[in-house]
Amino acid sequence: MSKKFVYLFSEADSSNKALFGGKGANLAEMTKMGLPIPQGFIVTTEACTKYYADGEKISADIEKQIFEGIAAVEKIENKKFGDPANPLLVSVRSGSRASMPGMMDTILNLGLNDKAVEGLAKLSGNARFAYDSYRRFIQMYSDVVMEQKKEVYEHLLDEFKAKKGVKLDTELSADDLKEIVAQFKANYKANQGKEFPQDPKEQIMGAVRAVFRSWNNHRAVVYRRLNDVPHDWGTAVNIQAMVFGNMGDTSGTGVAFTRDPSTGENKLYGEYLMNAQGEDVVAGIRTPNPISQLENQNPAIYKQFVDITQKLEKHYRDMQDMEFTIEQGKLYMLQTRSGKRTAKAALKIAVDLVAEKMIDEKSALTMIDPKQLDALLHPQFEAKALKDADKTSLVAKGLPASPGAACGQICFTAERAVEMHKEGKAVVLVRLETSPEDIEGMHVAQGILTARGGMTSHAAVVARGMGTCCVAGCDKVVVNEAAKKCTIAGKDYKEGDFISLDGSTGNVYASKVATVPAELTGDFGTIMAWADKYRALKIRTNADTPADSKQAVKFGAEGIGLTRTEHMFFEPDRIPAIRKMILAKTEADRRKALDVLLPMQRKDFVGIFEAMEGRPVTIRFLDPPLHEFVPHNEKDMKALAADMGITFEEVKNAVDSLHEFNPMMGHRGCRLAVSYPEIAEMQTRAVIEAAIEVNKKAKFKVVPEIMIPLVGEIKELKYVKSVVTKTADEIIAKAKSDLKYMVGTMIEIPRAAITADRIAEEAEFFSFGTNDLTQMTYGFSRDDAAKFLEDYYAKKIFEQDPFAKIDFDGVGELIKMAVEKGRKTRKGIKLGICGEHGGDPASVEFCHGVGLDYVSCSPFRVPIARLAAAQANIRNPRK
Amino acid sequence: MSKKFVYLFSEADSSNKALFGGKGANLAEMTKMGLPIPQGFIVTTEACTKYYADGEKISADIEKQIFEGIAAVEKIENKKFGDPANPLLVSVRSGSRASMPGMMDTILNLGLNDKAVEGLAKLSGNARFAYDSYRRFIQMYSDVVMEQKKEVYEHLLDEFKAKKGVKLDTELSADDLKEIVAQFKANYKANQGKEFPQDPKEQIMGAVRAVFRSWNNHRAVVYRRLNDVPHDWGTAVNIQAMVFGNMGDTSGTGVAFTRDPSTGENKLYGEYLMNAQGEDVVAGIRTPNPISQLENQNPAIYKQFVDITQKLEKHYRDMQDMEFTIEQGKLYMLQTRSGKRTAKAALKIAVDLVAEKMIDEKSALTMIDPKQLDALLHPQFEAKALKDADKTSLVAKGLPASPGAACGQICFTAERAVEMHKEGKAVVLVRLETSPEDIEGMHVAQGILTARGGMTSHAAVVARGMGTCCVAGCDKVVVNEAAKKCTIAGKDYKEGDFISLDGSTGNVYASKVATVPAELTGDFGTIMAWADKYRALKIRTNADTPADSKQAVKFGAEGIGLTRTEHMFFEPDRIPAIRKMILAKTEADRRKALDVLLPMQRKDFVGIFEAMEGRPVTIRFLDPPLHEFVPHNEKDMKALAADMGITFEEVKNAVDSLHEFNPMMGHRGCRLAVSYPEIAEMQTRAVIEAAIEVNKKAKFKVVPEIMIPLVGEIKELKYVKSVVTKTADEIIAKAKSDLKYMVGTMIEIPRAAITADRIAEEAEFFSFGTNDLTQMTYGFSRDDAAKFLEDYYAKKIFEQDPFAKIDFDGVGELIKMAVEKGRKTRKGIKLGICGEHGGDPASVEFCHGVGLDYVSCSPFRVPIARLAAAQANIRNPRK
Repeated sequence: MSKKFVYLFSEADSSNKALFGGKGANLAEMTKMGLPIPQGFIVTTEACTKYYADGEKISADIEKQIFEGIAAVEKIENKKFGDPANPLLVSVRSGSRASMPGMMDTILNLGLNDKAVEGLAKLSGNARFAYDSYRRFIQMYSDVVMEQKKEVYEHLLDEFKAKKGVKLDTELSADDLKEIVAQFKANYKANQGKEFPQDPKEQIMGAVRAVFRSWNNHRAVVYRRLNDVPHDWGTAVNIQAMVFGNMGDTSGTGVAFTRDPSTGENKLYGEYLMNAQGEDVVAGIRTPNPISQLENQNPAIYKQFVDITQKLEKHYRDMQDMEFTIEQGKLYMLQTRSGKRTAKAALKIAVDLVAEKMIDEKSALTMIDPKQLDALLHPQFEAKALKDADKTSLVAKGLPASPGAACGQICFTAERAVEMHKEGKAVVLVRLETSPEDIEGMHVAQGILTARGGMTSHAAVVARGMGTCCVAGCDKVVVNEAAKKCTIAGKDYKEGDFISLDGSTGNVYASKVATVPAELTGDFGTIMAWADKYRALKIRTNADTPADSKQAVKFGAEGIGLTRTEHMFFEPDRIPAIRKMILAKTEADRRKALDVLLPMQRKDFVGIFEAMEGRPVTIRFLDPPLHEFVPHNEKDMKALAADMGITFEEVKNAVDSLHEFNPMMGHRGCRLAVSYPEIAEMQTRAVIEAAIEVNKKAKFKVVPEIMIPLVGEIKELKYVKSVVTKTADEIIAKAKSDLKYMVGTMIEIPRAAITADRIAEEAEFFSFGTNDLTQMTYGFSRDDAAKFLEDYYAKKIFEQDPFAKIDFDGVGELIKMAVEKGRKTRKGIKLGICGEHGGDPASVEFCHGVGLDYVSCSPFRVPIARLAAAQANIRNPRK
Repeated sequence: MSKKFVYLFSEADSSNKALFGGKGANLAEMTKMGLPIPQGFIVTTEACTKYYADGEKISADIEKQIFEGIAAVEKIENKKFGDPANPLLVSVRSGSRASMPGMMDTILNLGLNDKAVEGLAKLSGNARFAYDSYRRFIQMYSDVVMEQKKEVYEHLLDEFKAKKGVKLDTELSADDLKEIVAQFKANYKANQGKEFPQDPKEQIMGAVRAVFRSWNNHRAVVYRRLNDVPHDWGTAVNIQAMVFGNMGDTSGTGVAFTRDPSTGENKLYGEYLMNAQGEDVVAGIRTPNPISQLENQNPAIYKQFVDITQKLEKHYRDMQDMEFTIEQGKLYMLQTRSGKRTAKAALKIAVDLVAEKMIDEKSALTMIDPKQLDALLHPQFEAKALKDADKTSLVAKGLPASPGAACGQICFTAERAVEMHKEGKAVVLVRLETSPEDIEGMHVAQGILTARGGMTSHAAVVARGMGTCCVAGCDKVVVNEAAKKCTIAGKDYKEGDFISLDGSTGNVYASKVATVPAELTGDFGTIMAWADKYRALKIRTNADTPADSKQAVKFGAEGIGLTRTEHMFFEPDRIPAIRKMILAKTEADRRKALDVLLPMQRKDFVGIFEAMEGRPVTIRFLDPPLHEFVPHNEKDMKALAADMGITFEEVKNAVDSLHEFNPMMGHRGCRLAVSYPEIAEMQTRAVIEAAIEVNKKAKFKVVPEIMIPLVGEIKELKYVKSVVTKTADEIIAKAKSDLKYMVGTMIEIPRAAITADRIAEEAEFFSFGTNDLTQMTYGFSRDDAAKFLEDYYAKKIFEQDPFAKIDFDGVGELIKMAVEKGRKTRKGIKLGICGEHGGDPASVEFCHGVGLDYVSCSPFRVPIARLAAAQANIRNPRK
């Protein structure tokens, strides 16, 4: 017996969404529940994958089963496909395992032809309806199956209406529509070189093929990539007897949600139109009515509908998004699914459903997409103000580099930003691009706008870390720093002018747009408390300042997983000292410069230790290549020469000698400490002295975790660790302190993972640096890969950005290897991750699965990680 | 019972060199053989490692055992340590498992003090001898134990001789020497702040400590790194009763080899001096006599000595290097070891020993250091001419970048090199640095001299590949290309002047120095034939031209493991086409440029296939980032713009857009073929058409192996392979050919090794690209690492250059993983290596061990690989 690719709604196993798709499974379920569903059948997702495996061909076997499906529906509906007297019409819709709203194609009214349309007219006693349906079908078929632009047809229709002097489709008569059908068919023939197909079997195979094909249309591919849906799932096809909302004034169609998808309010929400088909509701030509009006118009139908919606919500234990049609006074449900909702609504619905005892806390947690939370953690534009601004003051669009909304006065330099901030002004920093020297200005700004640079530019990366709104690479902005002005889309803006940025869309508004602050209490607080109850992973944060640390604690961070000490060196009052250190020719000179840095670093650590109040703090020692700290333009080099009392040539030679062919693979990380152990010595001294100082006064005990970066070989770690412990132990002994500290390493070089059993002999903890580990494992640098990854997505070689979601097969294997080997040598070794992946839900789930102790992410991703960790533990509980 | 750290020569197990060191084991063996050996004891290598483990301290237990050893020797020799009447004197010598000649320290005459010297004078009836020994002891002790520069003492001695008006030490009287001893002791006190130690026990412990310490002196550490000796072996210490070659005219000392170490001739070879201690033989103040003179001077002793040398050679089945002393007419053997020898001698001795039936072929093969062969494969300077040149015309020293000797007329540009070569002149190309455009000139040059660039500079890498002599980074050379002259050490040289280069030492001679060609027959041929008989690995070569291919076949290559197609693009007549291809804005333009390249590539492959006569040829598709091909200076960019009919700005923008932050991790390898599949198409066409063309005429059958580089993910390979097979199969079908071909990949990205089971689904062969694999696994690029690896060697974090010898623990683990996973998916998958490691003996042994099918290396390393492969299979035979 051949494989079954086609199932009637009444046959399908409604729990098997993988095979039947979400829509098909739900139609089967609603059929089982006895709801009024136009019957039909499902062509399985396996038929779709077979279609692709067979070189985009539908096999004869599948075709045969489809026709058998049609025959069965004919029997149920007592109509006949292509019968001029009593024609069966069907809709053909996509339906994949994961909801991909609007991404794939749909065809309605299939089965109509020149004869059937007449039959339909007779049968319904409504020729206008019949020809309206036919013209819709020709239009959709041309668009979806033949891939002809539908604008041509819309244009013809508009011309016709103009000629007739009418505005609405409903004002057209049956004869008008007959004429339009004739025009449409002529157009079809002119375009396709053949007549519009009259055989419904040809029509249906074309439609099924088109739905399969639409699985791989560009927007669907992009949607899947962004939403983590595998390309090989395929879509099912739902073929369903048509019911008609356009059969006159007792017919209609609509969509509704069991709760408000914007706010989550528990109240039926939706819209409908009488004498219309589904597409009219969304098309915007006629304004639909709110669902509540149906109560007046047809109280019986309304009551029946409300009962069904409540039944469905209870059944699925989630807010439902439904489509329905009323055909000559009879209600039909066309589809139901869990409704898309805003972040705010998602929280409210989840909390309410628990209160209503419809679900338990665990189910509530798994209902929420952790990525959605991001929107709640940043200020947003006030909804009404945004709507107005979109119409009146939207002047440019850049890259949505860091989410949130910002409104403030323009300034063009970091210095001015600081000054204006001191004057109590809210500022937006507008720069060609930012550099490490701008840090302070970026810190005080409400938002950052750059003319150049991508999603991984300095501005973007730093802003995301700070949780500051940023629109990057906005090439419509021309910055003239010297003249203190910029030009946006031809108009000049000067310092002090108001501007607003939407970091989630990239929109730039040349006006003041009111914002509302992030809301971290209420439902948010409830959900977070539940998440903490059910998760096994600890959540730490990456933070380099006391302010960031406090922010992260507010978001629920239980420690710091990564403090990047080099960020402290970029501050304007410190960069001269670090430059002197780098340009020193002797160890003695280097030590002299380090002595200047010591008290500053110590102060940084005191601040962070105090902010974290005894929570663990992991401090990574100096990591970037030294050339990042030195000036590269003549002016700054001359200034440095003057400051150091050496010649410009000496500075220039020193700077040149720091040049590297591949800085990512150069003299950085622990390699610096191997060459210049005195740097590690100074940093150890700063950490240990700060901890002793804080422990003296505080009620808590700081146990600093010193992390040596970029280790690839046990002897590297051994060497640097010996410098650390010698320095630390001397200070502790001298201070007669009982301070404890740990020394560990990052696992970010493939060789460190491969030799983790050896590394664990010295390392008291591992922190996976998955940014570098991904770069080295794949052999491409993030900056350079951006150029060719687009080709990789287009050719479906990559489905995911490996820098956003951990590559389970490659990088993940190395992590697993390191976890096993590390624990083998040192049973209780502390394991964490501090790459940007630490805030990605799928990656958090992976980290949970391989048994890490914690993940660490930027402060604004801490809530996301908390929820993702809870979901991971609910799905796959840790023993 | 405590561990035994001290063994008498008569107690030690002479087969355990790991414990007793080479010298100690051989002294034990000679004792067992009944040879005349001054008796003594060995402090084991374990005592040395314990010394380091204990923080550079000798434990009380070891000290006790040393004194017990002394007591035992006192008994044997019937003398007493420190006895004024009959003092026991000893020598203290290092002796590690591997011979490290001259690297560590030795002390003679230990046990002397102010009283013992008098006793020795009385006992020997030779006060002159006694005081001479004492002054030598003070001098050595100061130098070795107290680390005081010995020049001070030599200076005192020279002053004294000058005052006395004598030239030789032997002209000094006993009283003179007594006075010198007084001066030496005063100097010691002035320097050390205390008297010269009179207690022999203090002396001996100081000496043992000094030998242990000398294991880690700078020159020993460097020697071990260069010779692949692990740092943790440690050295043994040999303490032996003194015999005196300076006891008058019937005493003497010397060194001898059982065969000539330069030529291998089977004839006793050596030198001796009467009335001297060992150091005098090498010091060069008195000229030693050839060993044959001893026959006249003392025929009995000579005969006894010759007998012993023959006995030792037979016993050890190898040429021996021995030290001996004659004390008042009695012969003592002080040491024997396998003698160091030149490459030429090594081959002759090995072949002769087999002919003499002393050893079998396998033993002969394992006796030869494969690395030594290199010297035989290149032209060398004629020995006498070199000796003269060293004295008269050595003007500079650069880096020994590529071995061999070269002599020719100076030229300063590649073009002139080609012209002068056509005129029949031998040329040496002198450049500031070389670039890809110089390839043709480099090809015709006898040698290459550059003022800038290191061991991995373009000149060095290309020259090594070609087997051309190269001295790189010689900063004494100032090149003035425009004036057609250069200045070396202050003197001008113009085009046409003769210059000679020694690529093995880096020496530059401003004269014609005669060279002798490489010799590949005779003993070399015999050894190679034996190697081929016993090896399991196949040996292929890396070659990009027919000439290189033929050269490699001559050296015994059995195929090509790597043809770098990009090298063909750098040729001056092709670079315009490749540049047009890169700058093309549309696929159509790109294809147009590729059409120009196609016939050129096809011709290259025809040439290589013909040269290899049916041996397998692996062709790697385009690998380097495209910016390597485009001009970076304004002049060339302008020329290109004119040639392409576009503006300079367009060229400049295109060139700028190719810039990468980390080119090593950028848009290269198969990533290019993913973005521009038409490049892979053109290359496939060139390979397949060439193979069909050659197969039509030839008696052999070419089966090209197409290799896709830099694969990290199966889908990359799948995509590019589909382009290759589609193109290839079409051509083959159209030509009605029966051509077979293979498609495989390089494993050079860690992720490829980790997912090798998946990759093997598509790849018909793997070739390990260990250069890139090492870079990615360690996370450092070869170019940049050069800067800090010196720190790594100095701090003993690295013992080996991982780019020269495969890192077994990291990179090696990945290779093992890939071999296992690859074979699991595809049982008979062909496995090879084509990184530079393919010519490193230790790496070849590793490849043999993990079960690769072949190694591939540059033509000049093929003989080395053949021998190394044979040694590997002899040591660890493959089933």
